Parts: sequence; structure tokens; C-alpha cells
Amino acid sequence: MSKSPGEFHLIERLLKRLGSGRRAILGPGDDCAILPANRARQLLTIDSMVEDVHFKLTWGTPEALGARALTVNLSDVAAMGGKPTVCVVNLAVRDGLGMRFFDRMYRGLQSAAARAEVEVVGGNITRAGALAITIALLGEVRGAALRRDAARPGDTIYVTGTVGDAAAGLQILSGQLRARAAARKFLIDRFLRPTARLQAGLRLARIKPAPAAIDLSDGLWQDLGHILERSEVGAEIDVSAVPLSAAYRAAVGDDRALALRGGEDYELLFCLRRAVAAPALTRSLGVRVSRIGRITSSGKAVGKVVSGTVVLVNAPDSVGRSRRPLLAGWDQLRSQPGG
Amino acid sequence: MSKSPGEFHLIERLLKRLGSGRRAILGPGDDCAILPANRARQLLTIDSMVEDVHFKLTWGTPEALGARALTVNLSDVAAMGGKPTVCVVNLAVRDGLGMRFFDRMYRGLQSAAARAEVEVVGGNITRAGALAITIALLGEVRGAALRRDAARPGDTIYVTGTVGDAAAGLQILSGQLRARAAARKFLIDRFLRPTARLQAGLRLARIKPAPAAIDLSDGLWQDLGHILERSEVGAEIDVSAVPLSAAYRAAVGDDRALALRGGEDYELLFCLRRAVAAPALTRSLGVRVSRIGRITSSGKAVGKVVSGTVVLVNAPDSVGRSRRPLLAGWDQLRSQPGG
Repeated sequence: MSKSPGEFHLIERLLKRLGSGRRAILGPGDDCAILPANRARQLLTIDSMVEDVHFKLTWGTPEALGARALTVNLSDVAAMGGKPTVCVVNLAVRDGLGMRFFDRMYRGLQSAAARAEVEVVGGNITRAGALAITIALLGEVRGAALRRDAARPGDTIYVTGTVGDAAAGLQILSGQLRARAAARKFLIDRFLRPTARLQAGLRLARIKPAPAAIDLSDGLWQDLGHILERSEVGAEIDVSAVPLSAAYRAAVGDDRALALRGGEDYELLFCLRRAVAAPALTRSLGVRVSRIGRITSSGKAVGKVVSGTVVLVNAPDSVGRSRRPLLAGWDQLRSQPGG
Repeated sequence: MSKSPGEFHLIERLLKRLGSGRRAILGPGDDCAILPANRARQLLTIDSMVEDVHFKLTWGTPEALGARALTVNLSDVAAMGGKPTVCVVNLAVRDGLGMRFFDRMYRGLQSAAARAEVEVVGGNITRAGALAITIALLGEVRGAALRRDAARPGDTIYVTGTVGDAAAGLQILSGQLRARAAARKFLIDRFLRPTARLQAGLRLARIKPAPAAIDLSDGLWQDLGHILERSEVGAEIDVSAVPLSAAYRAAVGDDRALALRGGEDYELLFCLRRAVAAPALTRSLGVRVSRIGRITSSGKAVGKVVSGTVVLVNAPDSVGRSRRPLLAGWDQLRSQPGG
């Protein structure tokens, strides 16, 4: 039942070709890759992109798809302040996709790997009803890691880049939003070709005490919620300070609802014990940084909107869940005219 | 588009519960797991099980499914002579499966992990059209690794356990083969509940020079082919020496065609420079071992059947493929009366 059709062999060869062999003692082609001993602590993450759930093939090029499958993992390593090293790729292949497609997809993946100095050391191919790319990525962290549980009341909250662009791009791709050519291209590109903030993550990891951090994959609202839950704190967000791109403003306007809810920007959200002016952080991290709020003590109030400041309080219910109150907070925000 | 439905949160919590935290500095719940520095060389592998490709839910229990998803990865580490350490789990979830199902599946996965002293340090959940479990497993190897490219002409070829049982079990499950109750149960169990030969792998890794080895996932014929291809050698297999279980004989008879072609037994095939009597190996590896042939020089003859001995020669064609000649050899074998 799991036997490989003929073309699998060719795809497997493609996969083996990926290994460039500098980091690994043994790359693709055996039961496992062999990696050298590692004096640094290691990071390990896994992420998956499934056709018709995370992407449609008509939306972009195979190269962009391959690159994005790695980038979503790179972003997890960036959010821990680590340096990615090696990865393994599981490819679920459906009928109707030719070698040319896989060749191009792998080329995109390989380019993204080379840019991040990551080596593809192994992989696996399986048949499936839909195309899916699942990547497990190893990294290393030499200083303190940027953890979700490190936020403390009084910390200042920052975010890199602009948020909501990928969500707007996705809405354009799926026909829910219209925009002029330049904004359209920018927003779609932000969705199809995200950038993992690896350099910013590495630089943040030099700050003491180590900042709490997370990458924005589920959306600012939900990802901030993860920090609050793990750190057992609350937050006040100045919604008007949440950074929007000119393209987002052109396509969506000043409504930040999509920017707060929409995911897949792969920017970093982080919390500093000692506040630093955003322009100074922008210079030292090499990417635009905006100050958007502060961490507060945990409490019972949930999603209170006080003249543009959202009070996000981590208020676990009796079984320890805190997602529901946060989403309630979000609903309340969305119901405000103009965000 | 990739937003999580409500139940995801519960499944995620289930996943986080898995981390027991002895090996990892930080387990599930952050962007990445944090692992301590490692003085040993490491192994890394990824494997996937997809509904309706590798399994049907009606075939077995959710517990067996969870355990098997890890076992196929453990087997890859066993085949390198390593000790598995930590894993991350990517779960693709389709509609129609309740929390009870996932709870039971994770319990099976967790039991298999505990038995192998493996820690689940992270994971990811995504929606998909079919259930799929993809696991990336790390291991460590302290001595020499058992590589596919280490076979040399003159090596003796051995296999652990019996082969063809899982393939027969799969044929029974899919209604292609009938067997009496005892044989039926044994063969189906061999398919649904395979054992990774971790102890045998570790003990093989103490032999010098390090044996070539591979686990039988694609079937003896094809997996031996991987060793021949990587080592650039040929092989002679004494088909009558390929070990069959009593249940296999009861259900299939003495025809070894299915035993040679059928995969998913997760036994080890290995090659020793200095021949050792099978009973002595059986004692030292803690699992039945059978001697089935020898490695020869590479050459041009393909799949010659000489009175029960199959001459398997690795004969790459002009583009370096060797799978086709091996399969041709297989076809020739199958056409012989009585295997």
C-alpha cells in the first residue's frame, strides 16, 4: 500500500542532491543523517504547509512555496534568538504534479536554505491526497534563548516590521480584498515571500535579561496571548501604535482589526525589561521596530478597550485555558468602530 | 486560511502534556524546544504515516497507530546503531475525529516513546484532508554508525527476525489473503505493532569494522538494493535461507515472493566482514538472526536465478539508476515457480 510509484525514485534523487555536506557527517541517502557533536544548546522545531489549507498552487511560484516552507521554520528559530543549522524535509506528494514542479520547489527551498546557511540533511517522500511540506529544523543558541515565559509586568512590548500585510495579501489572493497594483504586489509578496527575522533574533539574544519573544504566525493578538499565558501576565496594547505599511493603509485603511488578528507576517514580537527608544532598536536590530504597549500584572478584566488602549489580561479559567478570554477580548475590539 | 478551529487548542494542550522534560531544557509550548549540548554525534530522521496511504483507521486501535508512527522512526535510528533521544510530532488533522481518538493515539505514541526512552519535545498541529502523523527523531551514536555504504565484496548478509509477516498482515487486512485465527492475529500484529530493533542496532555498532545496515521498510529486495547502490557492490541471496515465520508459512506457504518484496517488517539487514554463525549472533543481538547471502563485486548480470540463489548485481544504467535492474531481478524471481 505504501509502495513507491516510479517517479518517487526521481524525486528522491532530487532530495538527495540537496545535501551540500558541510555541516553533516552524512547527508541524505541513509536511514538517518549523521551530525557532529554540538557544544551549543540546540533548538528543534517542526512546521508544515498543506495545500488548500495554507496555500493554493495557483497563488505563487513553486520556488516561493519551497522557500516559504523553510521560512516558517526559520522564523521559529529566529523567535528563540538562535541560528538555524540543518533540516529534514518530509514531502507528501499527490498525483498531477510533475518533476518540473518539484524541481522548481526544491530550488526555492535550497535557495532559502543557502541564504540562512542551513543544510538539508535528509528527507522522506510519501504519497498523499494533497501536497504537504513538513520541515523539522535544528538550530543552536549560544546565549540565552528568547522564551515565551520570560515576560514580566512593566516590560515594554515591541514588534518588528509592519503587521497585517500577509493577512491583507491573503485576502487579495482569495478575492476578499482589492487593491491597486503596487499595494497589491507588496501585500501578496508579504504573504508568499515572508522573511524570517534571524538577524534581529540573534541581536535580541544579546540583551540581558533575555527578552521574551515570539514570531507572529497566528496573528499579533493570538501570539501575544501565548506570551501572556506562558508568562502569567497581562498586557496593555496601544492599538494606534501597531505599525501598518503604506500598502496596508492603501488597501485596508486605518482599521487595525486585520493587522491584530491576521497571521503569517513572521515578524517578531518581544518584551524588554528596560525600555529602549524604537529608533535606537531599529538601528541595532537592522529592522524597523515599533513600541506597541506594556506588560501588566495578570488579573480578571478581559479585553477592556480604554480609549484606544486594549487591556489584554491573561485570565485563565478554571481549567487553565486562557485563549477564550483573549479571543473574547479580540471580539470586543473588532466591534469598536475604526478598530 | 490557516486559522485554528477551537478543538485545535485542546489537541495542542494534549501535545504539550507529552513533554516529560528530562532530556529537554525546554519542551513543548514555545517556538522551539531547547536541547542541551551533545557530546555524541547525532542522528536525525523524518518519517510520515498518511491515512489511506499507509493505514486505514478501521485496521487497528488509535494507540497502535500512535506507537507505529514513532516506531518507523525508531527503526531508522536502530538501523544506524544509534540511541533515539527526542522527537517532534507534526499532526495533520481532518474533520470527523474527536478528542477521544487523539487522546488514545497520543497515549500510544507516549507509551512507545517511554519504552524507547524518547522524549516528545514539541509539535505542530495543522488541518488537512487526511490524518497524517509526521515525526522527526533525533538520536545519538557513540561508536561507528551503521551506514548503507559500508558493504564490501565478501561480506556475509544477515537479517533479524522473520520477513514478509507485515506484508502478509497487510494483505489480510485489505482482504487479499485469508488465514486461520492464530496466524491471522500474528501477521496483522506484525503489521500494526512492529518492533524497532534498537538493542540489536546498538550491539551491531560495537562490531569492528562497523557493519553496513538498513531497516526493512520498503522490503528486503528494495532495501538490500539501497545498500548495493550506496556501497557499489552486488549480492547473492540464498532465497531458501530467507527466514519465514510459522504464521507466514501457514497463510502464504513456502513462496518467498511476498517475503522478499513486502515491506514494513522493520527488521534489520546487515553485512559482516567476518562471518559469524547465526546462532551466536542470535545470542549476542538478543533477536533471531539468519544468514541469507553474501556481498559480491558489482557487475553487469542482473537478477540471475541460479538454482535458488538470486544473483543481485548492482548495475547502474547510464544515468546512475540501479532500482530498475533490481526490480527486473525481482520480476524474474517472481516468475519462478515456488519463488
